[in-house]
Amino acid sequence: MQEATFMGQAAQAPSGTRDFLADELRRRTAAVTAVSEVFERYGFDPLETPAFERLDVVTGKYGEEASSLLFKILRRGVHEASGQADLALRYDHTVPLARVIGTHGSKLPSPFKRYAIGPVWRADRPQDGRFREFVQCDVDTVGSHSPLADAEVVYAVADGLQALGVEDFRFLVNSREALRGLLEVYGVGLELGDGVLATLDKLDKIGEEAVAGELAERGVATATAEAVVADIAADSPDRLRAKLETNPRGKQGLAEIDRMLELTGGLEGRIAFAPRMVRGLDYYTGAIWEVEAVGYPGAVAAGGRYDQLVAALGGSDMPAVGGSVGIERILATQETAADDRRGLDVALTALGHSEAGTLRLARALRGRGLRVGTYLGTSGKLAKQLKWADDQRARFAVIRGADEQAAGEITVRDMATGEQHRVADDDAVAQIERLLGH
Amino acid sequence: MQEATFMGQAAQAPSGTRDFLADELRRRTAAVTAVSEVFERYGFDPLETPAFERLDVVTGKYGEEASSLLFKILRRGVHEASGQADLALRYDHTVPLARVIGTHGSKLPSPFKRYAIGPVWRADRPQDGRFREFVQCDVDTVGSHSPLADAEVVYAVADGLQALGVEDFRFLVNSREALRGLLEVYGVGLELGDGVLATLDKLDKIGEEAVAGELAERGVATATAEAVVADIAADSPDRLRAKLETNPRGKQGLAEIDRMLELTGGLEGRIAFAPRMVRGLDYYTGAIWEVEAVGYPGAVAAGGRYDQLVAALGGSDMPAVGGSVGIERILATQETAADDRRGLDVALTALGHSEAGTLRLARALRGRGLRVGTYLGTSGKLAKQLKWADDQRARFAVIRGADEQAAGEITVRDMATGEQHRVADDDAVAQIERLLGH
Repeated sequence: MQEATFMGQAAQAPSGTRDFLADELRRRTAAVTAVSEVFERYGFDPLETPAFERLDVVTGKYGEEASSLLFKILRRGVHEASGQADLALRYDHTVPLARVIGTHGSKLPSPFKRYAIGPVWRADRPQDGRFREFVQCDVDTVGSHSPLADAEVVYAVADGLQALGVEDFRFLVNSREALRGLLEVYGVGLELGDGVLATLDKLDKIGEEAVAGELAERGVATATAEAVVADIAADSPDRLRAKLETNPRGKQGLAEIDRMLELTGGLEGRIAFAPRMVRGLDYYTGAIWEVEAVGYPGAVAAGGRYDQLVAALGGSDMPAVGGSVGIERILATQETAADDRRGLDVALTALGHSEAGTLRLARALRGRGLRVGTYLGTSGKLAKQLKWADDQRARFAVIRGADEQAAGEITVRDMATGEQHRVADDDAVAQIERLLGH
Repeated sequence: MQEATFMGQAAQAPSGTRDFLADELRRRTAAVTAVSEVFERYGFDPLETPAFERLDVVTGKYGEEASSLLFKILRRGVHEASGQADLALRYDHTVPLARVIGTHGSKLPSPFKRYAIGPVWRADRPQDGRFREFVQCDVDTVGSHSPLADAEVVYAVADGLQALGVEDFRFLVNSREALRGLLEVYGVGLELGDGVLATLDKLDKIGEEAVAGELAERGVATATAEAVVADIAADSPDRLRAKLETNPRGKQGLAEIDRMLELTGGLEGRIAFAPRMVRGLDYYTGAIWEVEAVGYPGAVAAGGRYDQLVAALGGSDMPAVGGSVGIERILATQETAADDRRGLDVALTALGHSEAGTLRLARALRGRGLRVGTYLGTSGKLAKQLKWADDQRARFAVIRGADEQAAGEITVRDMATGEQHRVADDDAVAQIERLLGH
């Protein structure tokens, strides 16, 4: 198609956003459908919230850094001139989930098991493959303390990854309580706790020495910092178990991990206790996990229990556990295979005055579920129309020239081999289906 | 689930927006899928553009009234304090389509046949069932003058309506050229043309007298205004044909209508020339149509040819034809049938210490594609757990009490009849599939 100019120059999609053309969009839609079907099998229900929330609902929920990444919507009408915002685009699916529990509480089943797959918007710098509009794929159970709920989320995510074609993966499990227990053992005050864990989470990024240094800056004695870092970096379950032997909090954390491993035994070797896996986010309270997969950078999924978050978001006190599949990261790593491109089953050329007959045949073929295009250009030349059929990746082209029309027939051309068949008009649909192997 | 309060009171979704809970969302997703499948059969390709466009891309594209309905996004970071906007939420799918032609021109097939089904946002007053976030369902062919393209859109929309369960519908066809020809016959200057047509479009709303009055205000002589209104209101093809006999523009319009009726003969009586059907929008240039359906208020679909719009939106000069299915109106009119509600195939109760076995069975059943829930609550009482299974609309509940565990069996309970079957653990999946009739 001829390049068009827009406002004198080709306008682009806004920075950090993408237009999804057919092939890529079909691949994305198929991925979302596949994951949805898995979540449905686990009894999770779909939930869709508006693209934006009231600014007062999200304000103060994400911390300072995240708040600066909100896309805020200007007030409208006479209030527009105020330059003030009253709405903000969805930043994640979690705050909307907490809000929905407030709005619809009594209408929701208990526990509330929901999945949400849809775009969120963050005004991050659009670089390093980061987008400002991207799909998050979340599954959460709100209202259950049961470890079965934790295990169910893990299984659902594992099956979701497989549905996305990620086979060679491994769940790394840890527990916030075990990690806090370790800090207790070393006498690190709990008031330093979450910050310390956020720092420990950087081990893979900045290394042991830098992490120990940052812990010292946070007020942990140097020798203690080095010992804690060494324990975590060793990534040895036995070593951590030994350290936590006499610490009640730590032992509770180990019990959470063991229960998780017991209940997810069906993953057969694809789940393990990984003391080094810390997770940076503050809000986790119990078992936490991350999934690494061969061929994919970083984590392809992550989650855990967050029993205080719904209350912290302004909802009532409610236990919760959830996970998120990194669908954008997975889609970005997988290539669009050439045969993902969807062509036409049948391309109908249009020669002479046979349009009504062409549309009749098109309609009959579409009625059989086939994907059918008709030539809409201006050329009366067969070669040009067959070139169009080829561009459309058509398996067969139908030709209805003067000859064919006089004989009450059509020619069906196999676009791969060039082989042609003459077929009676009356029999056209059945013959084309036969040629397509239907 | 217990009502939660959010910020001290139950927060709502923003005014004019909706949360879609499971049953309704599944119905909406099924509707979108059904229409998409129809459009795919017609060789249209899906297109998804970002939720927002650059403000300079949309500014001046919609006219004054529509511009005041844009949701504008505040600049971010250090620019936030300026109170200025630089982005706007998508107002329709048409301006993004024109922009995409500018951005991706040479990568797009020619003609470019695309469908777009997704939310748009308008800051309308949220009343009369109008929403500020609603789904538009558009199909357009850009780059073809062929009447086949017009007919293809009509057929695709007709099949789309049927896929949505709208059976008893009728296409009303007219032509902008025929209507402009009629105005020429009466000596109404073309400079008054579009405004006059917008007024004529109000016939059903405000009646003949008021329309004639408004035409007079627009500068049409009173007698002429009354004559034009009478011709349109009569809704008689023969009368309009007679009037246009000697007017070249009018005759071209009639030819467009006749061609459309010829090419859409397959709709058998569900399409007709309707002189009274005018369509208010300025941008149509050729054949136009609207669809009325028994049981639905207003039009359930509409469309037409708009050969100058893409250029007017800043793209290059490109013929175009399209249609829009009123999917929100259709969904709002149809009731969610009780059996649209999706229940569980199997609800697994959890008694005693059988969780690992319960999860194993759950996994095996889910592996067979069944929708399976496990009890995640705290009650150890079977009656309470069966109540949960009932709330989940489960077809079968599985019970694994101490008895069953000792015998290596499970009990499968038909939740509708109360009938119970004892089944060996090893045979559980096969027996449950048999009971489900799979």
